[in-house]
Amino acid sequence: MIRLSTTEADFEPRFAALIEQARETTAKVDAAVSAIIADVRANGDAALIDYTQRFDRWKPGALRITDAELAEAEASVEPALLEALDLAAARIEAFHRAQMPADLEMKDAQGLTLGMRWGALDAVGLYVPGGKAAYPSSVLMNAIPARVAGVGRVVMCVPTPDGVTNPLVLAAARRAGVSELWRVGGAQAIAAMAWGTESIAPVDRIAGPGNAYVAEAKRQVFGRVGIDSIAGPSEVVVIADASNDAAHVAMDLMAQAEHDEAAQSILITDDAAFAEAVVQAVEQALATLPRAGIAGESWRRHGAVVLVRNWDEACELTNRLAPEHLQIMVDAPRALFSRIRHAGAAFLGPWCPEAVGDYVAGPNHVLPTGRSARYASGLSVFDFLKRTTWVEADRAALEAVGPAAVALARAEGLTAHAESVAQRLRLNRPT
Amino acid sequence: MIRLSTTEADFEPRFAALIEQARETTAKVDAAVSAIIADVRANGDAALIDYTQRFDRWKPGALRITDAELAEAEASVEPALLEALDLAAARIEAFHRAQMPADLEMKDAQGLTLGMRWGALDAVGLYVPGGKAAYPSSVLMNAIPARVAGVGRVVMCVPTPDGVTNPLVLAAARRAGVSELWRVGGAQAIAAMAWGTESIAPVDRIAGPGNAYVAEAKRQVFGRVGIDSIAGPSEVVVIADASNDAAHVAMDLMAQAEHDEAAQSILITDDAAFAEAVVQAVEQALATLPRAGIAGESWRRHGAVVLVRNWDEACELTNRLAPEHLQIMVDAPRALFSRIRHAGAAFLGPWCPEAVGDYVAGPNHVLPTGRSARYASGLSVFDFLKRTTWVEADRAALEAVGPAAVALARAEGLTAHAESVAQRLRLNRPT
Repeated sequence: MIRLSTTEADFEPRFAALIEQARETTAKVDAAVSAIIADVRANGDAALIDYTQRFDRWKPGALRITDAELAEAEASVEPALLEALDLAAARIEAFHRAQMPADLEMKDAQGLTLGMRWGALDAVGLYVPGGKAAYPSSVLMNAIPARVAGVGRVVMCVPTPDGVTNPLVLAAARRAGVSELWRVGGAQAIAAMAWGTESIAPVDRIAGPGNAYVAEAKRQVFGRVGIDSIAGPSEVVVIADASNDAAHVAMDLMAQAEHDEAAQSILITDDAAFAEAVVQAVEQALATLPRAGIAGESWRRHGAVVLVRNWDEACELTNRLAPEHLQIMVDAPRALFSRIRHAGAAFLGPWCPEAVGDYVAGPNHVLPTGRSARYASGLSVFDFLKRTTWVEADRAALEAVGPAAVALARAEGLTAHAESVAQRLRLNRPT
Repeated sequence: MIRLSTTEADFEPRFAALIEQARETTAKVDAAVSAIIADVRANGDAALIDYTQRFDRWKPGALRITDAELAEAEASVEPALLEALDLAAARIEAFHRAQMPADLEMKDAQGLTLGMRWGALDAVGLYVPGGKAAYPSSVLMNAIPARVAGVGRVVMCVPTPDGVTNPLVLAAARRAGVSELWRVGGAQAIAAMAWGTESIAPVDRIAGPGNAYVAEAKRQVFGRVGIDSIAGPSEVVVIADASNDAAHVAMDLMAQAEHDEAAQSILITDDAAFAEAVVQAVEQALATLPRAGIAGESWRRHGAVVLVRNWDEACELTNRLAPEHLQIMVDAPRALFSRIRHAGAAFLGPWCPEAVGDYVAGPNHVLPTGRSARYASGLSVFDFLKRTTWVEADRAALEAVGPAAVALARAEGLTAHAESVAQRLRLNRPT
């Protein structure tokens, strides 16, 4: 954990170093992933079973998880948890329904009608990590927006290390309306969804987080199918004043840190004593948390406490960090939020810890990491929709705008373009 | 050119082959591009000048194109062409303004306020191809949506083979509000915009078409910056009935074919005699077109005439092709269009050749190619905007939804997540 203060002479280079700090040692896996993709394209299901034996240490009898298995898994989950899943699913669905965009149609002065129509993808593939990061909440967050967008076929792949599936993950998939569930993980799952196998029909777009192999596989199949952003380790910035409970802020920082040793938790505050109280409270929290090993490592390696003179500085630094998650725990948090240009998701006020957004608030928890909030957005219905623009013209409309098209096409040396307009208007003698 | 008919026994395999036909011989350029990117990162502007000498065969005195050079270039363009550019720019701007999405804010029954806020990217880079494909229309189509979205800094890179710049390209850049113009092309331009050099500050997202090197460079910098879809060769599907003028349809097909030998033009019609009339008219057009070499090669290699029994078949086949451009020249074109799920842009009626959309209609002409209209969309203001979702909760709201978050977090083994909610509600004894 580093302590920075904007009043110190070496603040700028130290803050710049914090921003550029590579939190992930990206393993060089591109050759291994190319080989896996080629193998799945050549050998289909057999390759998938082979990789499951090799990486997940068991041989699946069937690749597909059946409806009966789903029902059985759900029956094994305690009712209170299913109710919590239901509340989360309903709230996520409501927010994503509100996101749905409207079509556009406009007729202009020249008599052309212009439009833009939104349509759902036919089929999407969702990758859900297995093992220690098998999160039912991620199943809801990935599948519900696809369903709300109107995607007909929602395919999900999940690795099953040692044959183990998480019943709550399966229950979430059932609630979220997943059409097909496959016990396939890693780069081989991405290859199967992009290229298809005997069992798994190909999809049009793949979303969802994964390890280095999954990320590289998504990069390699990009173009064959669409992909979402490649997720890196998670991060939070908490902007808090001294009126807050230091223990609450500390636990918010640890909630991020417990994800992964590469996660990053940053406190920005204007009060030195409060900063030290939070640092103390983090140590106390680490003494009791089951995942203190991971959280402590993240905090020591990547944590930061930044002391600022005022909230203007806090906004400027936050915009440079472009964090995945941002908690704003100051007076009038909306006013401060209006000056933040880059953040994946924001949580306003002392009663709104980021964990609320991870599970039940409604907005998506799949968010841009590693400063990509500068240009990228969280998962949404827009990931599962595409636009078709359209133009309708009659003869009068073509007469109004056609001559300009002819002039520009001729200037670009594209004669057939020009003639396709000109001959309709009987303007076919070049000027 | 191949002739297909849905009544023939071997239609399905032949149509499937048409869809899977690789139109581009994608050169293996990844190692060359990696080396260029590493060189630009290490040597900055010097590397850019070096590559310009090597690939564009001249040594630029300055990398940046000055305002004086822009004004001089514009003064050399004939007024009628500037007027055509102005009409195009105004129409493109009006359509993209209409695209701008609205923010979302909703307060729900549990008392949480949820929102989604759109914001512009700070800086974007636009790649404009040079040489034979230096198109002023592409400058407008790339830069105007960025400006309409509210991007503050719009950087454009354009190669200048043998030192030649196209005055109309520069005039278009000036009109479109480009902030900085650089005479840099190829993979080195993408590297410079992604990583920055002494002269060129890095951007947040890169858009615009280019050759194989540019496409591979965009793939490699993805993650450091955002990128748009990687463009492949262009294509058009024309659905036309026998009431059309065969010469018009033929010229529409040739307008696509003249772009590139790898372009693809496909006619779908329900009338065999009309199909033959179009084929004849194509031959007549090829006898006169200056770019007949390119257009003829495209037509022979990739052209197709598909005879269908009815428009249901036409829609089904078009959805499988997911073409970049679609002309619908039948009675009641909107009704047929409503059954098309996958197309980049559609042009309705006999008076609406696709070339109108290339220049002056208003919707963007940068569109998804190579069947990617299944999941991708044309360039738009959405490429230059991102979303931040937000949540606001008070104590009562947290009490309403918090317990479900605590239950799910505990089930996922994320204790700090659970505690960050529970300790605010004094629920901190695990159940």
